[in-house]
Amino acid sequence: MDFSIPDDLIALRDRTRAFVRDVVIPFEHDPRRGAHGPQEALRTDLVNKAREAGLLSPHVSKTWGGLGLSHVEKAVVFEVAGYSMLGPVALNIAAPDEGNMHLLEMVASEAQKQRWLDPMSAGTARSCFLMTEPHPGAGSDPALMKTVAVKDGDDFVINGRKWLITGADGAAFAIIMARTIVSGEDVGATMFLTDLPVKGFSVVRDLDTMDSSFTGGHSEIDLKDVRIPASDVLGEVGQGFRNAQVRLVPARLTHCMRWLGAAQRAHDIASDYARRREAFGKPLIAHEGIGFQLADNEIDLHTTRLGIWHTAWLLDQGERASAESSMIKVHASEAVWRVVDRCVQILGGMGVTRDTEIERIFRDIRAFRIYDGPSEVHRWSISRKLAKVG
Amino acid sequence: MDFSIPDDLIALRDRTRAFVRDVVIPFEHDPRRGAHGPQEALRTDLVNKAREAGLLSPHVSKTWGGLGLSHVEKAVVFEVAGYSMLGPVALNIAAPDEGNMHLLEMVASEAQKQRWLDPMSAGTARSCFLMTEPHPGAGSDPALMKTVAVKDGDDFVINGRKWLITGADGAAFAIIMARTIVSGEDVGATMFLTDLPVKGFSVVRDLDTMDSSFTGGHSEIDLKDVRIPASDVLGEVGQGFRNAQVRLVPARLTHCMRWLGAAQRAHDIASDYARRREAFGKPLIAHEGIGFQLADNEIDLHTTRLGIWHTAWLLDQGERASAESSMIKVHASEAVWRVVDRCVQILGGMGVTRDTEIERIFRDIRAFRIYDGPSEVHRWSISRKLAKVG
Amino acid sequence: MDFSIPDDLIALRDRTRAFVRDVVIPFEHDPRRGAHGPQEALRTDLVNKAREAGLLSPHVSKTWGGLGLSHVEKAVVFEVAGYSMLGPVALNIAAPDEGNMHLLEMVASEAQKQRWLDPMSAGTARSCFLMTEPHPGAGSDPALMKTVAVKDGDDFVINGRKWLITGADGAAFAIIMARTIVSGEDVGATMFLTDLPVKGFSVVRDLDTMDSSFTGGHSEIDLKDVRIPASDVLGEVGQGFRNAQVRLVPARLTHCMRWLGAAQRAHDIASDYARRREAFGKPLIAHEGIGFQLADNEIDLHTTRLGIWHTAWLLDQGERASAESSMIKVHASEAVWRVVDRCVQILGGMGVTRDTEIERIFRDIRAFRIYDGPSEVHRWSISRKLAKVG
Amino acid sequence: MDFSIPDDLIALRDRTRAFVRDVVIPFEHDPRRGAHGPQEALRTDLVNKAREAGLLSPHVSKTWGGLGLSHVEKAVVFEVAGYSMLGPVALNIAAPDEGNMHLLEMVASEAQKQRWLDPMSAGTARSCFLMTEPHPGAGSDPALMKTVAVKDGDDFVINGRKWLITGADGAAFAIIMARTIVSGEDVGATMFLTDLPVKGFSVVRDLDTMDSSFTGGHSEIDLKDVRIPASDVLGEVGQGFRNAQVRLVPARLTHCMRWLGAAQRAHDIASDYARRREAFGKPLIAHEGIGFQLADNEIDLHTTRLGIWHTAWLLDQGERASAESSMIKVHASEAVWRVVDRCVQILGGMGVTRDTEIERIFRDIRAFRIYDGPSEVHRWSISRKLAKVG
Repeated sequence: MDFSIPDDLIALRDRTRAFVRDVVIPFEHDPRRGAHGPQEALRTDLVNKAREAGLLSPHVSKTWGGLGLSHVEKAVVFEVAGYSMLGPVALNIAAPDEGNMHLLEMVASEAQKQRWLDPMSAGTARSCFLMTEPHPGAGSDPALMKTVAVKDGDDFVINGRKWLITGADGAAFAIIMARTIVSGEDVGATMFLTDLPVKGFSVVRDLDTMDSSFTGGHSEIDLKDVRIPASDVLGEVGQGFRNAQVRLVPARLTHCMRWLGAAQRAHDIASDYARRREAFGKPLIAHEGIGFQLADNEIDLHTTRLGIWHTAWLLDQGERASAESSMIKVHASEAVWRVVDRCVQILGGMGVTRDTEIERIFRDIRAFRIYDGPSEVHRWSISRKLAKVG
Repeated sequence: MDFSIPDDLIALRDRTRAFVRDVVIPFEHDPRRGAHGPQEALRTDLVNKAREAGLLSPHVSKTWGGLGLSHVEKAVVFEVAGYSMLGPVALNIAAPDEGNMHLLEMVASEAQKQRWLDPMSAGTARSCFLMTEPHPGAGSDPALMKTVAVKDGDDFVINGRKWLITGADGAAFAIIMARTIVSGEDVGATMFLTDLPVKGFSVVRDLDTMDSSFTGGHSEIDLKDVRIPASDVLGEVGQGFRNAQVRLVPARLTHCMRWLGAAQRAHDIASDYARRREAFGKPLIAHEGIGFQLADNEIDLHTTRLGIWHTAWLLDQGERASAESSMIKVHASEAVWRVVDRCVQILGGMGVTRDTEIERIFRDIRAFRIYDGPSEVHRWSISRKLAKVG
Repeated sequence: MDFSIPDDLIALRDRTRAFVRDVVIPFEHDPRRGAHGPQEALRTDLVNKAREAGLLSPHVSKTWGGLGLSHVEKAVVFEVAGYSMLGPVALNIAAPDEGNMHLLEMVASEAQKQRWLDPMSAGTARSCFLMTEPHPGAGSDPALMKTVAVKDGDDFVINGRKWLITGADGAAFAIIMARTIVSGEDVGATMFLTDLPVKGFSVVRDLDTMDSSFTGGHSEIDLKDVRIPASDVLGEVGQGFRNAQVRLVPARLTHCMRWLGAAQRAHDIASDYARRREAFGKPLIAHEGIGFQLADNEIDLHTTRLGIWHTAWLLDQGERASAESSMIKVHASEAVWRVVDRCVQILGGMGVTRDTEIERIFRDIRAFRIYDGPSEVHRWSISRKLAKVG
Repeated sequence: MDFSIPDDLIALRDRTRAFVRDVVIPFEHDPRRGAHGPQEALRTDLVNKAREAGLLSPHVSKTWGGLGLSHVEKAVVFEVAGYSMLGPVALNIAAPDEGNMHLLEMVASEAQKQRWLDPMSAGTARSCFLMTEPHPGAGSDPALMKTVAVKDGDDFVINGRKWLITGADGAAFAIIMARTIVSGEDVGATMFLTDLPVKGFSVVRDLDTMDSSFTGGHSEIDLKDVRIPASDVLGEVGQGFRNAQVRLVPARLTHCMRWLGAAQRAHDIASDYARRREAFGKPLIAHEGIGFQLADNEIDLHTTRLGIWHTAWLLDQGERASAESSMIKVHASEAVWRVVDRCVQILGGMGVTRDTEIERIFRDIRAFRIYDGPSEVHRWSISRKLAKVG
């Protein structure tokens, strides 16, 4: 057993940390941070800075222009990248692109990688992933999927409605998930790749949401006779849910890594404030009512970090780690939530203003208990595994 | 002991409920709901509707144009008003005006009431209350107050900095709290009334905040040689903190009432959604993981309601109820928070969008654990009382 | 609305409080408090004291020798009785007798009351209630009941296995619940009365349990051809579950009342300790880490008390109050648990010793989240009601 | 980074697990498990079994007859030993002996090791550690220590009162902590070794406590002119608190290890029950209300295990790990508590009976949030470290 971090990884971590501190954080006051996420021009500026710093797309293999980090290495680097909510944007490791790149590397054909992975890895193209549907379609329960792709000659013709599609506005291409009908038969779900714009694909509206850190925000999409050649199927027909698992487990974990960094940021701001702000005759941090909350933050951050490292290590060993992935998703999303909520409380009135970054982190991090499987679905999944043991 | 609600109060409650449902809620999609609160024109529309309905300023005495409700009566009516976050705006019972009207009724001279209470009770004038200061001034600990009023002839000259001043932008007048120096001696804090605009009083900036339901938002105010005649002192010189108590205990309780209504609204939306939305073969509400959360909501709403009624009844008996007021503030603010947080979770992805009112309630209600005494200050106050019992 | 307690009820409460303090509490060190509850001789001593004090069986109607308290009156008196875990034993209001007396008053025939209620009300006879069965029989789900009564001429013959039967050891009579077969047909559950000992009824073993405040402890009972004449059916054949509801709702509430008193006791001991014990330069209570826990206790006790009063008042109005009964059962059992757990923590090492009464209260009160419907069943019941509203 | 367990450690773990399952658990129904812990004869039987199995004193160096496990190795082995509360007794790794052996190895002279460590390592002698005092002496705050050792010629003469002294009844020797006066000057605290019985050392009483797994229970001790030669000072005069730190950090962590095993046991019992027991038409585990609790157990056990491993690894690297030690103490003691409390709840009525081991684990594990530093002291310590960072 060994918890040490190798020297080269420490060096990369420290370089990333310095980059975030010196280059990224100053952009946090950039007016191009909008209600629907950092605007494209801001994103490009940040990506260019990361490229210059040699830190772009660290999760992508060297073959495709990245740093080829293992899961454990990502755990260490993504956390410090997440210290600013603009850090993942700069390093090109924000959702949904980060997960999409991983998926393409694992599943796409060489030609598809050339066409779609390459520009995305270079930070010049963004993507979106169309899975979630509005009521009564697929949400936590993917079996409810209503979007349908019907084989028509050498093409598939897709109809349906998707929503909460992150980054759709401005994306260069999309991965669309749909139930698939071949010769009148339902052959399961399939993933399709398509450049954007494409005929029949329209952004119905951009949703107003609590969060504001994803470029392109979240949209509702109408799919009306979208025609996609069979050669642009990602993986194989009918393997959509299997592909989704390939994407989901590591994508879930990278969310944990980035949000751990954001929560650490909030904690550092709150700790600093609690050291300086006085009330009732002493610094806030010397009041047990505040100090204990900060201690609980430390514990939550610590146990989350260890859980992430452990699951990342399992993935590096080639394990599916689906139970551990569920456990750390629940623990991390709830622990970082508690941390950031305490930070708001410690700052008092200032906590609900945009005078510190905590307010944005708070609004953004709430959704983490919901996406990539809400806590309830993961708890159910864990208990189902346990039910089968006996 | 009697928990029944008298018939005339039931009638008023039901009339208010219908007004909120039929008249107020349709305004929730009005574009004049801004990031810094409902704009003045929207406020005026709502107030006019309430005036027509005979529901304006229910907490003000009949002498001054209101309905003269007792605290218990307010508990029943304010809750249903709070069912829409625009309801209190319409009825003219939103913070800080509601508390300011109460304060003026209790403390102001007849002439001051004519000048300031009368138009406010009529819904034509708004006010603001300047107490909180930025670091290192008065926050949770009022003893840190840095703003100073110096007696100069028949006037007082005020200098200082205030912030998180709700409704300052657009207010017709202000109540300013300042340490007071008379003949070189600190004689305690005093409250001053002043029409706005007044020379030396400037809005430095409107704060960006998580919430968005207070008309005028929250501002930072610079006070530079603001000159106020001695006749505009509210109450007596040096009695500022005593006056603040007159304002705070009932104002804290009316916050509980309004937010209880808002939490009930969120709960109703979430319950309705959980009845209709299906996942994994049955409606969400039939999943214990969701149903139990809704059950906890019911318990939290129920115990909060009873606690509010009890404290209101104590106030109606003429008691100070300071312990009960602290207890219900902590319980209510934390219970409604849990309720609304669960509602977000139950709605899943939709919960973090503005497609339902829950998202706004969530962002607004967070601050309630902070203002009018953060939970930590109330817990400390409760424990101090207990420390003295032995 | 009125939260005041009438003068005569205050007088009775204060008399009960003084009795508990002066007469009952000194018995807490009596060696006849055993692991399986206060022994019969101790119980008799306590009952005699209460009889002398005119406080025996306050919940029984005056007709049958009690004080005829309403539910609200019970709420006030039972709480102060519960201040010592021996108080309910003394006043003859401990489970299961208290609920059984109520049930007999509501359902039994005049002759049955003469025979069974009268001596129980006088404190000379104890009873037991046989409902719960070991796996795979009736627990939280009464539909699983395996015990069967078969009509045989003018008698019923009962076979089955019951467990966790409180007070069976030493009881003068039993109420047995069994599925009932008449002419080969299952006609539902029925309650049967029988004096003890009776042929075929045997205590298999006394269970070792965490708690120790119920006289007679908790036993496992074998029922082997127990023969009961039809005239000893309680209520009507097939109406067992309906009768159980008559018993359960108020019995559940009286548990809340008594345990509220016990939790108040623990809180008073812990508060007193926290005032006297010093650590790190000041009394424990002056440490926010302790003071905040005591403040939370105050809030939990306060909201529990109000919830009990409210449900009691509803019952006095003739309402079934089944939703409120579930809500207060969950809230009270979990709130008093938190209170007592905090008290253990505040006492530190002393908290886990029998040097104060807290240790016994802690062990006894754990089961309250389980009996009379575990929290999970009540939450499910509350959510089911909500599911039907839409 | 590497989370793998080496093959030889897996082998030892599996051997220990089998020993606990096949040899130790059958002793759980031995009547010699008393209210004051397993009796000496039972302890001896268990120790003999472990000696035969080659598993005795695994934490002691090979020099002194143990297996010489590192901290990480202990983490793995102690957890499976703790699976039965008799496991640590058998392996001779129960508190306080386990910590005392560690302390002696680190601090004692060769002669002292021969005299006191050797028989303890062999499992033939037990020891006790006298630090805690009754009010107003040393509890959480060791600075309040009242026991005094006065240098008198070549001896020290000790007077004072200790309590909650685990295992004192039947111990072969004691380590006594006392403030030390040399030539009239307070030179700090010192640890003294003494065989028992010794003149002036008397067990005033055995405390009745909630727990029952420590041989010898917990006693109150009177020290009246106990005379100890200077050669029996453990370490150096005045270095008592420094020695205490040597003992405490690892001792605290081994508590975490053992209780993790006990919590895992409770969880396995509850999971098994939830798979078999049906209610409302399906197994308990298929009810989300139960399944989610079991999922939370899994998460709590998992994060606790990782935290223990991490701190153990730090200790193996020679670090003091005082922050991590505090964090894992708080997290582990509260997490295992939640686990066991949920297990009681899942078992329902059976959970509060001694029909499963859960009831004992529940009663024993409560104190873990108190001893070796209550949660409050550790949170305070963590926040103090944080206060100094800025």
